[in-house]
Amino acid sequence: MGWGIGNLPYGSVVGPDGRRFAAVRFGDAVLELARVDADLFAAGGLDRFLAAGPATWSRVRAEVVDTLTADRHPLVPLADVTPVLPFAIGDYVDFFASEHHAANCGRIFRPGNTDPLSANWRHQPIGYDGRAGSVVVSGTDIARPSGQFPGDDGPIGFAPTRRLDLEAEVAFVVGPPGTRIAVAEADEHVFGVCLLNDWSARDIQAFESAPLGPFLGKSFATSLAAWITPLEALAAARTRVPQDPEPLPHLRETGAHGLRLDLAVSINGQVVARPEFGSMYWSYAQMLAHLTSNGAAVRTGDVFASGTVSGPARGQRGCLLELTWNGAEPIELGDGTSRTWLEDGDEVVVSAHAGDITLGEVAGRITRG
Amino acid sequence: MGWGIGNLPYGSVVGPDGRRFAAVRFGDAVLELARVDADLFAAGGLDRFLAAGPATWSRVRAEVVDTLTADRHPLVPLADVTPVLPFAIGDYVDFFASEHHAANCGRIFRPGNTDPLSANWRHQPIGYDGRAGSVVVSGTDIARPSGQFPGDDGPIGFAPTRRLDLEAEVAFVVGPPGTRIAVAEADEHVFGVCLLNDWSARDIQAFESAPLGPFLGKSFATSLAAWITPLEALAAARTRVPQDPEPLPHLRETGAHGLRLDLAVSINGQVVARPEFGSMYWSYAQMLAHLTSNGAAVRTGDVFASGTVSGPARGQRGCLLELTWNGAEPIELGDGTSRTWLEDGDEVVVSAHAGDITLGEVAGRITRG
Repeated sequence: MGWGIGNLPYGSVVGPDGRRFAAVRFGDAVLELARVDADLFAAGGLDRFLAAGPATWSRVRAEVVDTLTADRHPLVPLADVTPVLPFAIGDYVDFFASEHHAANCGRIFRPGNTDPLSANWRHQPIGYDGRAGSVVVSGTDIARPSGQFPGDDGPIGFAPTRRLDLEAEVAFVVGPPGTRIAVAEADEHVFGVCLLNDWSARDIQAFESAPLGPFLGKSFATSLAAWITPLEALAAARTRVPQDPEPLPHLRETGAHGLRLDLAVSINGQVVARPEFGSMYWSYAQMLAHLTSNGAAVRTGDVFASGTVSGPARGQRGCLLELTWNGAEPIELGDGTSRTWLEDGDEVVVSAHAGDITLGEVAGRITRG
Repeated sequence: MGWGIGNLPYGSVVGPDGRRFAAVRFGDAVLELARVDADLFAAGGLDRFLAAGPATWSRVRAEVVDTLTADRHPLVPLADVTPVLPFAIGDYVDFFASEHHAANCGRIFRPGNTDPLSANWRHQPIGYDGRAGSVVVSGTDIARPSGQFPGDDGPIGFAPTRRLDLEAEVAFVVGPPGTRIAVAEADEHVFGVCLLNDWSARDIQAFESAPLGPFLGKSFATSLAAWITPLEALAAARTRVPQDPEPLPHLRETGAHGLRLDLAVSINGQVVARPEFGSMYWSYAQMLAHLTSNGAAVRTGDVFASGTVSGPARGQRGCLLELTWNGAEPIELGDGTSRTWLEDGDEVVVSAHAGDITLGEVAGRITRG
């Protein structure tokens, strides 16, 4: 039931004849969306569909259900198509919305502070702008990046990263543009949800980050799942997380914009963490409200991500930085090997489900850079 | 001679009939570029031209000179056209490449440190990803952003910024895509130069920046000049800045990628600073080499900017943060008023020239947000 009639995520694929088309996934097959609305999906991607907004999203979903139920059109086997990025990425923003992740980072990098969270953290969803041009679709190989960091003997060198990490995140895809979007209006602008892996080179990141934050330690690649699950499919997963102190009025939660998603992170087939998205401190609606509160406009195709999803238990931590405590505590894989950081050849898969709804996985294999 | 046959910057304008067209500026008039190459400029912007690379840039420039010299086509008065963004912005990156600016920021925000520069600063051009969707063309009004910062009475509030600043910068426009671009190959990928104002809300920025850097304090708006000066026009302005220590091999300067540009920053017509770009520590070729050294690719239409251009003298500082020493030392305008930060109604203009070559100004007026 993971890919049943209640799920129906959207993507874009290249078929056996080399033609790109927009598709919805149903079981182990895809339906070409142009059969449901030829105009909206003529270009082969989701761009026009995303821009059209919630009324169109609901209409198309209903028509897809009708089409599948009536068995009106032939499906294409999933094995015969290759997913590509389903829309043109606008701006990519990455948040830092997990309290456990932020606190663990504080404990690792600023030990001795009474509060591991920075003073701003409970006041606003902290985030930064990422590199949209480096977003790649799930399945793309990830070349180990090189960069500057102190070598074993002291001086700064330029070398392949020795601390390559994954970050298991949940991303949100923007539909119609807007600015100063109220928390209560978020669902007018957010089409859906997909998994994201924000690959990170911790040594490069650590050396470069003062005073302007992460840059080349992140910008080499960000992997996005091939299938976007519409918010409409996740109604039963909605939840609301208590916040203390209550945010300022423009960030106050008005509904239930949390989502109970159970993530799993695996390396070479071995599950190393099971983060729970339902406990994230800041909701996607609050992220979007904050992002646009200064007058910045979002555009169709903008992607904003949650930051690493981590829970309170060690087994719920969504990156190796936390799982291995910055390399001090290696984790064992089932094959008799252990990891502090990712090695060449490692295959990382982040998957998730919300009850019967399976999210499209985000996968990537490390290659020698 | 500021807009003579040796200059010929490129832009995109809307004419009296509402039609958008790509244009080159000559004196107080513009030539429609489709008259020189109908295919390349058919879409009204510079996107295809930028992607075409140096051989095409040189050919088109020679043909424009021929056309203007032969008086072959009618020109359109500059007063009859309205500039728009001349190409689709890919990713926008902002560097921090002025030693004097970086050192002044260090002295203001981290007083007591022996070295006002962070440990990484002389090893690499420090930078961060900005918000491409917030880039607007010169002349666009800038609404004062609101955001979170501590109020006079202590608690964090959400209010219009009280510390609105300008940053006079020089930006570079990417033509053909590439990755791991060597310093010596930069000119194969950089089409030209234009002024940029990286508007900044210092109170919002100060509260949000730990630990991930600037975000909403910058993302509300970034103004780009309407006219892009090709590097080909700036051959006589080239210079080379000594660096100590010598950068690592992949960042080592191979030619003369510094540019002697004399900037002027005015508020309401009064010049408040005259920064010199020729003394910037890191060159645009080094910025591009660094930006792509981790495997990140640049795309056609990417923009990367220098960061605030500041020289050693107080009168050469390119932002109010430095000019007023974080608000402690107001500057006098010629009209009997003084400023610590920008006020509603203020008109900021950044202009520049390199000998006879005038760069397109970047202008913006502050409106109540």
